[in-house]
Amino acid sequence: MDVSSMSAIAALAKKASYPLSLLPSAIKNAALKAMAAAVLKNQDMILNENKKDVEAAKNKGLAASLVSRLELSDKKIQGMSDSLNLIASLQDPVNRVIWSRKRPNGLLIQKVGVPLGVILIIYESRPNVTADCMALCLKSGNGVILKGGSEALQSNRILFNVLKKAALKIGVPAGAFGLVTTRDRQSVKKLLTLSESIDLVIPRGGEGLIRQVAKVSKIPVIKHYKGVCHVFVDKKADLKKAASIVINAKTQNPGVCNAMETLLVDEAVAVSFLPTLALELRQKNVEIRGDQKTLKLIPDAKKASEEDWHAEYLDLILAVRVVKDAKAAVAHIQKYGSRHSDAIVTQDKKTADFFTSSVDSACVFVNASTRFNDGGEFGMGAEMGISTDKLHARGPMGLEELTSYKYVVTGTGQVRS
Amino acid sequence: MDVSSMSAIAALAKKASYPLSLLPSAIKNAALKAMAAAVLKNQDMILNENKKDVEAAKNKGLAASLVSRLELSDKKIQGMSDSLNLIASLQDPVNRVIWSRKRPNGLLIQKVGVPLGVILIIYESRPNVTADCMALCLKSGNGVILKGGSEALQSNRILFNVLKKAALKIGVPAGAFGLVTTRDRQSVKKLLTLSESIDLVIPRGGEGLIRQVAKVSKIPVIKHYKGVCHVFVDKKADLKKAASIVINAKTQNPGVCNAMETLLVDEAVAVSFLPTLALELRQKNVEIRGDQKTLKLIPDAKKASEEDWHAEYLDLILAVRVVKDAKAAVAHIQKYGSRHSDAIVTQDKKTADFFTSSVDSACVFVNASTRFNDGGEFGMGAEMGISTDKLHARGPMGLEELTSYKYVVTGTGQVRS
Repeated sequence: MDVSSMSAIAALAKKASYPLSLLPSAIKNAALKAMAAAVLKNQDMILNENKKDVEAAKNKGLAASLVSRLELSDKKIQGMSDSLNLIASLQDPVNRVIWSRKRPNGLLIQKVGVPLGVILIIYESRPNVTADCMALCLKSGNGVILKGGSEALQSNRILFNVLKKAALKIGVPAGAFGLVTTRDRQSVKKLLTLSESIDLVIPRGGEGLIRQVAKVSKIPVIKHYKGVCHVFVDKKADLKKAASIVINAKTQNPGVCNAMETLLVDEAVAVSFLPTLALELRQKNVEIRGDQKTLKLIPDAKKASEEDWHAEYLDLILAVRVVKDAKAAVAHIQKYGSRHSDAIVTQDKKTADFFTSSVDSACVFVNASTRFNDGGEFGMGAEMGISTDKLHARGPMGLEELTSYKYVVTGTGQVRS
Repeated sequence: MDVSSMSAIAALAKKASYPLSLLPSAIKNAALKAMAAAVLKNQDMILNENKKDVEAAKNKGLAASLVSRLELSDKKIQGMSDSLNLIASLQDPVNRVIWSRKRPNGLLIQKVGVPLGVILIIYESRPNVTADCMALCLKSGNGVILKGGSEALQSNRILFNVLKKAALKIGVPAGAFGLVTTRDRQSVKKLLTLSESIDLVIPRGGEGLIRQVAKVSKIPVIKHYKGVCHVFVDKKADLKKAASIVINAKTQNPGVCNAMETLLVDEAVAVSFLPTLALELRQKNVEIRGDQKTLKLIPDAKKASEEDWHAEYLDLILAVRVVKDAKAAVAHIQKYGSRHSDAIVTQDKKTADFFTSSVDSACVFVNASTRFNDGGEFGMGAEMGISTDKLHARGPMGLEELTSYKYVVTGTGQVRS
């Protein structure tokens, strides 16, 4: 597989996208259930291929956190299968009536969901993404082209083959799924020029990868560059809840985009909140980098620099700043945030409303962890990515976000006067 | 006003977009009503300035159709005022709850409308667009930068000043409306690079203008290049309705994007339909360009070439082709259409369903004229443009299409496990 085969994969997907757009829900759901059964049935083979990737990654000296993302297990394969079955059970976004309106002249206007066409996803490490994306694109009637990370090549290949075979047996058109197995960068660059065949690109991974894709692509890109997520503890916060949200948002999975990076605390509660929180954070091995006021309350914290407010650590490090009030917290988030996920902890409804209407982020949380910005947690079954863009889709991208719409207007001979 | 002032206009609009996003509906609606009153009150002054544009256009030898689009009248100003009042009466798309979902863990997820930010519209001729766009952007909480055609400069300037003054008096922030009055192309090119301040570009006008904008812009563009719209008369059509839809779609306003350019007729009804239709079309001065089979039934028609199937005439010319069946009609539309507006005339529900699901256009009509693809006709009050893109917005762009959304997630201390 080399640069020259990219156009062929894309053209096949484009060709399949027409029959795919008309595929009945029953066939799509049967295919998804067959795919769910197939990953379980072929579990040993999948784990075997995955082992090759994991060993190569270890030999290459990849970070333990990356190896653990790459590594599959019985439990992870069961999770994949469950996710496929869940997506089968969700409403088909194709042909769904988004709204319907009868006009005074008798015309019935229906806004109806339609697939986008062909979607290219470029992603790193986690082989689960392969199954999620194949399932979401199939259910939403889109062709999909998968370009996973080279470190997961064996895992992605076996998963792709097992899932594709199961789906094709049920009647899914062959071009619906494309896998790019080449490791050379020219092939990806080539794909990003094929705007006649590919309708949307979703890059998932490090900021460098995403910026590169956005820069080079001739195809529209939906993306987020990074997640500099904040939790603001208001003066009217329930401090017990605040502590549990902060600990969760920082430590439950620090390597992901919806983990908290900066904690903002109202000065009115800083004394009662920060010193005890620091004890808990220390137990979880979290390094604290604080502003002047924080350092007074947590003397052994490091001093935060301007860079820390911009940082996406993706690690057990937390920037902490004491702010005057909710307004100052919003100003900080507007200046340093990445418009991904930001939370307020407060019992005061008015302050919560001020925060949710003023903070211009994809997801704004009140009294909940930022970690909930996730397609699965939102009831979408899975996600193709999380967007901080404002056009088309924002936040987790599930089935509906992978569709466009058309207007179907039904009359009885109406003409315009 | 020159290239250097473009960044200033855009920066002002960006700055205004934050208070604009929080502006209460009551103030926006009061401003819209004040604007509606102001155009009527200043009618004489507006008509006076418009006269200058119209005279200059006549002196320059502009086509009569363009002059008539440019020319304002008491009636057109009343229409503008009515449209402003109508937009005031529509639901505010900002803060509207698109959907709301309670998760098993008790989290309340609300998908809520938010403005896009700042929108740049580049348009030709019709001064009405100035009022429509200012109104739609204000109501949807967006800043707007208007770049109208140089032939309408005096009209746009007076309208802009009258409308802006009325809105600012009610409390709309000053930067909300920007008008670009320079005639040099470098200024527009400069605007199209300001992706930090401008969130979306909507070009309206000839295909050349739109392609140029799409090519140069560093900002996302939503657009349609052209409208090669079809009417297909099925073998099960009510031929009286078919004739009236064809005449309307072709002649009611031939110079616009949703006018029909190609008529497709099922061979089973060609004999009974085409010769009598030709008489009616001739009375309306429509030139017919037909395929071989059409020429047999309308002997004085011109012969259509391959180019005619691609043509957006925007004139009293109609390409006519006799096709084998609905499937052949769909194949023709897929090959030659512009995915704008296509209609079928049929009494057969199954054929209608086949057509509406197979034709991948922004608007698909059953027994109605293609001319209804229009924001006003869809109940949107007005439109910023019509999109044939599939990302973000498709078809007429009204208030909802000028918004994005955010998720507001409210909990009681939930953390992720």
